[in-house]
Amino acid sequence: MPTPFNRIPAERVRESNPSIWVELSALASEYNAVNLGQGFPDGPAPRFVTDELKKIAKHPELTCAHQYTSGYGHPKLVKELSKWYSYLYQQQVNPKTNILVTVGAYHALYYSFHAWINEGDEVIIIEPAFDCYAPQIKLAGGVPVSIVMNFPDGGTNASQFTVDFEKMESSITEKTKMIVINNPHNPTGKLFNRMELLKIADIAQKYDLIVVADEVYEFHCWGVNKMIRFASLPGMWNRTISIGSAGKVFSITGWKLGWAIGPDHLLAPLKAIHQNCIYACSTPTQLAVAMAFEKEWETFHVKPHKSYLGGYLPEKLEIKRKKLQKMLVNAGFAPISPQAGYFMLANYTHLNTGFRISEGFEELDDYSFTKWLCREKKLAVIPFTAFFANIEDKMRNTSFVRFCFFKKDRTLNDAKKIMKKLSK
Amino acid sequence: MPTPFNRIPAERVRESNPSIWVELSALASEYNAVNLGQGFPDGPAPRFVTDELKKIAKHPELTCAHQYTSGYGHPKLVKELSKWYSYLYQQQVNPKTNILVTVGAYHALYYSFHAWINEGDEVIIIEPAFDCYAPQIKLAGGVPVSIVMNFPDGGTNASQFTVDFEKMESSITEKTKMIVINNPHNPTGKLFNRMELLKIADIAQKYDLIVVADEVYEFHCWGVNKMIRFASLPGMWNRTISIGSAGKVFSITGWKLGWAIGPDHLLAPLKAIHQNCIYACSTPTQLAVAMAFEKEWETFHVKPHKSYLGGYLPEKLEIKRKKLQKMLVNAGFAPISPQAGYFMLANYTHLNTGFRISEGFEELDDYSFTKWLCREKKLAVIPFTAFFANIEDKMRNTSFVRFCFFKKDRTLNDAKKIMKKLSK
Repeated sequence: MPTPFNRIPAERVRESNPSIWVELSALASEYNAVNLGQGFPDGPAPRFVTDELKKIAKHPELTCAHQYTSGYGHPKLVKELSKWYSYLYQQQVNPKTNILVTVGAYHALYYSFHAWINEGDEVIIIEPAFDCYAPQIKLAGGVPVSIVMNFPDGGTNASQFTVDFEKMESSITEKTKMIVINNPHNPTGKLFNRMELLKIADIAQKYDLIVVADEVYEFHCWGVNKMIRFASLPGMWNRTISIGSAGKVFSITGWKLGWAIGPDHLLAPLKAIHQNCIYACSTPTQLAVAMAFEKEWETFHVKPHKSYLGGYLPEKLEIKRKKLQKMLVNAGFAPISPQAGYFMLANYTHLNTGFRISEGFEELDDYSFTKWLCREKKLAVIPFTAFFANIEDKMRNTSFVRFCFFKKDRTLNDAKKIMKKLSK
Repeated sequence: MPTPFNRIPAERVRESNPSIWVELSALASEYNAVNLGQGFPDGPAPRFVTDELKKIAKHPELTCAHQYTSGYGHPKLVKELSKWYSYLYQQQVNPKTNILVTVGAYHALYYSFHAWINEGDEVIIIEPAFDCYAPQIKLAGGVPVSIVMNFPDGGTNASQFTVDFEKMESSITEKTKMIVINNPHNPTGKLFNRMELLKIADIAQKYDLIVVADEVYEFHCWGVNKMIRFASLPGMWNRTISIGSAGKVFSITGWKLGWAIGPDHLLAPLKAIHQNCIYACSTPTQLAVAMAFEKEWETFHVKPHKSYLGGYLPEKLEIKRKKLQKMLVNAGFAPISPQAGYFMLANYTHLNTGFRISEGFEELDDYSFTKWLCREKKLAVIPFTAFFANIEDKMRNTSFVRFCFFKKDRTLNDAKKIMKKLSK
């Protein structure tokens, strides 16, 4: 006769809530909706990247391709990353000590918080913000402190999202240890300019803070918009953990490879956790990404505009951005034009649809709208309030939803058909 | 002028020591040694597995192969795992709720401890033990409690490693929450028999303990040796987190895919951490492993002896085990014949070599011997004391080193040449 099991889980997990992504993805799939929700391209991954994986898969005998590789990163991948980021940061990046390869940028963020945050330490987040920061910080015992950006009523461009730096500075206490910045910014599409970044740098220096620079959309800047990597600012290498993503760089989000880059003293504790968490990342995908970077470098560093990352990708993104923006305007949304990344916010409250906010019961309006849009119109998007941690801030921001425009033409055209019929 | 950076890492990482694997792997590579150290096959991965990855790599347009997949596991992989383990445990394993796919078994272990262990909770480990358990438990705030197995002087078979169950029971306190068992056992090659497993089950029931069953070598049993999966024992499904590894099952250690399987109430907190740690595992490798399992099932469940896992793999292992054992005996080692897995321990102290323990300075003898063997003879192995947590237990166990015999014939033959010249 089996005895009953009465144990309860560790304290650290008791507070955790189910991720909205799980619920919304399930909904999108249940209604077979056109998916402009989750941030992944649904078009083909670049063939020059998948071809490298194919080469590797053709050689089961290569231990450097199919067996354990070095814990902190495949030797070939850290070599390539060192070459790329030494160039991009204008700062010597040592392949052996300044890079840690992780299971996506998500994992690099987890390590950054777990390695540096003690019970009660405060971390400044600029909101709206990618919704994993706050729960990851809490899991490490930390306290997320939200600095909500200002945005003018009727604003039309993501550059109008601005940080009140006085407010940021006044929120700093003895417990503040870290600032997270996300640039290009998800979900707004804002690209921080030099002046703004230097303000953050000043504050970091003044209060001896670590800056976690989540720059996963670093190559997703089109036209005149120029990416400034935080670690390249004067004095900032020394206090910045920069986070990147092969999934975003090469449109292979499912490969789940990312990296943290920084000086020894910042990375060493991340490595200590890594050693006890997964020990090493996947060998074949690391090697394929390394070879793709190697190939891309040949063009990128001589004729960037002819390369995939410096030419093809941003051009493609701008076309898709324009296409979605036009569709949204025509349908009666009021979009906020992004400067970079692959997301666009749009105000849905002036739409003349059958949707009535009273449907919302006890939900936030944007959640009600999102569910209604998915269920009734078969279009999946993400509610804006998902990117705020505090209920008061959520309540003030219920008029927007987020669209991902890095989707194949067929998906965008399907969305267009739905939008055309949206207004009565 | 940059201000100095003065912050110190989170408390949880301050105690961590560099892994021995880093040091020993570096040494093996520096001396270009024949490597019977780290536990990975250096022969080709099975082509029917890598061929599945090749098929996937040929289709960059498939979002189900290259973009984000479900957080707890690729739908196709959890479906296959559910089929396999429902059969192997004789217990319904629900693909949606009873499985969590992880970055190797290592990661599943990390989650198990992090999800269930609070500051000060005690976890029983049967030693010698895979050297990640203790640091992972400590990282979660727990206290590893070692139960060292008995082994008779001059013993020659891994079955002679025995657990003193009275000692185990007497080590249990109010703080004890979990037992970790590793079966087949690394590094000894012991396969626990039904009687032994039932003893552990009794103790788990009596003290309401969680059992973490690390069964990554579950298919590595040859001849008459029969694997009994812990979750299949009466009443044990309810309190067991079973851990498996695609890297070990299909000889693709670098793919870094594993899983935790268990009832909802045990897995839910692991999922809560997973959701904030990596969110999801690599899509292409999960899909390839799923397709390999699907293919293998066709033969395995009707004619196991004709299948890869039921026939080819164990037969190959037994041949290699015999080959290494013979080499070791001829060279003057006293090996302990394993019952399963791909490791073999051998006493090196009766060798008539140039090695003198006095070379050891302030190291443990087996470390000195291992380094000497690598440096002077170009043969890499692992010191036995790496598998004990406490210094007293290490001191009592300095006479053995561990060999991995799942190596291609060329590697084993190279090792044979070295061993022939070892004794004067």
